Amino acid sequence: MSAGHVFLVGAGPGDPGLLTVKGRDALVRADVVLYDRLGTEGLMGLCRPDAELVDVGKAPGRAALPQDEINAELVRHGLAGRVVVRLKGGDPFVFGRGGEEAEALGRAGVPFEVVPGITSAIGAPAYAGIPVTHRAVATSFTVVTGHEDPSKPSEQTDWAALARVPGTLVVLMGMGRLAGIAGALMAAGRPADQPAAAVQWGTTPRQRSVVATLGTI
Amino acid sequence: MSAGHVFLVGAGPGDPGLLTVKGRDALVRADVVLYDRLGTEGLMGLCRPDAELVDVGKAPGRAALPQDEINAELVRHGLAGRVVVRLKGGDPFVFGRGGEEAEALGRAGVPFEVVPGITSAIGAPAYAGIPVTHRAVATSFTVVTGHEDPSKPSEQTDWAALARVPGTLVVLMGMGRLAGIAGALMAAGRPADQPAAAVQWGTTPRQRSVVATLGTI
Repeated sequence: MSAGHVFLVGAGPGDPGLLTVKGRDALVRADVVLYDRLGTEGLMGLCRPDAELVDVGKAPGRAALPQDEINAELVRHGLAGRVVVRLKGGDPFVFGRGGEEAEALGRAGVPFEVVPGITSAIGAPAYAGIPVTHRAVATSFTVVTGHEDPSKPSEQTDWAALARVPGTLVVLMGMGRLAGIAGALMAAGRPADQPAAAVQWGTTPRQRSVVATLGTI
Repeated sequence: MSAGHVFLVGAGPGDPGLLTVKGRDALVRADVVLYDRLGTEGLMGLCRPDAELVDVGKAPGRAALPQDEINAELVRHGLAGRVVVRLKGGDPFVFGRGGEEAEALGRAGVPFEVVPGITSAIGAPAYAGIPVTHRAVATSFTVVTGHEDPSKPSEQTDWAALARVPGTLVVLMGMGRLAGIAGALMAAGRPADQPAAAVQWGTTPRQRSVVATLGTI
C-alpha cells in the first residue's frame, strides 16, 4: 500500500473564517482528523461524514493524549495510506508542537506538509483593534507563552530579558498568570504606565478585551 | 447613501492557498479592490469581473501611492457605499500599515474590519521546514523588519537589544542587507555558529532557502 499524506493544519485563533483555503481543502478531503477541541469548534462540520475524528486534546476530566502517542498515530495512519489532517488551534509551529510531529513523520518516511494558520498572537489583538506593529510606536514584536509559572524555580522564560526587548510583547495563554507576568516585566524595567491589553477568547463571539496599563492590568 | 464596508485583508505570504476563507469571501464580493502586487499575484482572479481593481503598490518604474492617499481612497469608496477590499501581502497589522488605514476609516466613520493573513514571518520558515518555536530549542520568537539600513545613523532598529532577545529572531524584508544584519547581531553578542537560514520568495514556487550559521549566511 502506498503511503498516505499528512497535513499539519493550523485552524487559526477561533473564528472559523480564519482557516486558510488550503487548510479547508485538506479538512474536506481527510480520511482521518486528529484534532484539539480548543480553537477548532466551528470547523469539524467541514469533515466528511465518514471521516474518522479523533479528539487528542484536553477535555473535561481527561488529559490530552501524550505528544509521542499523537506522533505515533499520525505515522500509523500515514503509513496505512490515508489522508490525515492534524488540526490544532492557531499555527502548528507557534507553540503547537508541529515541529515534533514533522520530525516523527520525516523519520518514518511519511509524506507531509505544514499548512500555517493565523496565530492568535496576531489575530486576537487585531480583532481587539490592536496592531502588533504601528508606525512610530512599535517596529517589532515578540511572542512568548505565559503558560509557565513565573514563580517556579524551573521557569524557562527569561522575563527580564523579554522586558528589555523593544516593541510589542505578546504573551499567549497568559490569562491565568496576568498579575505575575506584569509584575515580572515591571521588576525588570518595563514602566507601569506602559499601555497593556488583555484579550480573552480572541476572534470568537465570546471575545472580551480590556485596555489598561501594565501596572493596572 | 449608506456607508459601505471596508475589509483590510491580509493575503498571506504568497501561496494563494494561504488566503483565509473570510478574506476570500470578501474579495469575491468586493466592488473595489485596492491591492499591492507583492504577495497577491495568485488572488486577483477571484475578484468579480466588474470589480474596480486599483494597484496602489510599487511597480516597475513607479512609486507606491503615498499612504495618506491610500487612506483617502479607502474612505472615499467607503463613504460612497461600496464594498471595498484593501488587499496586501502577509498580515495588515505586521508591517502592513493597516493600523493607519484603520485609524483613517474610524475617524471618517466608515465601517471596517480587519481580516488577518498568514504573516510571512511564520509562513515562509514553515514552508522551509523551520518552526519558529520548538520544544527545548526556542520558546519565543521576535519579528522585526530588515528594511531599514543598519549603516544609517537614523536607523531605528536596535539590533543590539534584539541580539540579546532569547529565542528565534525573524527578519522580514532583510535579504538585501543580510550581511549587515548578521554582522550587527554578532557584534552585539549572538554567536557566529548559531544556526541561521535565509528564505526568499517564501511559500511561492520560486522559494529558495539556505540553512547555514550566522557567521556564514
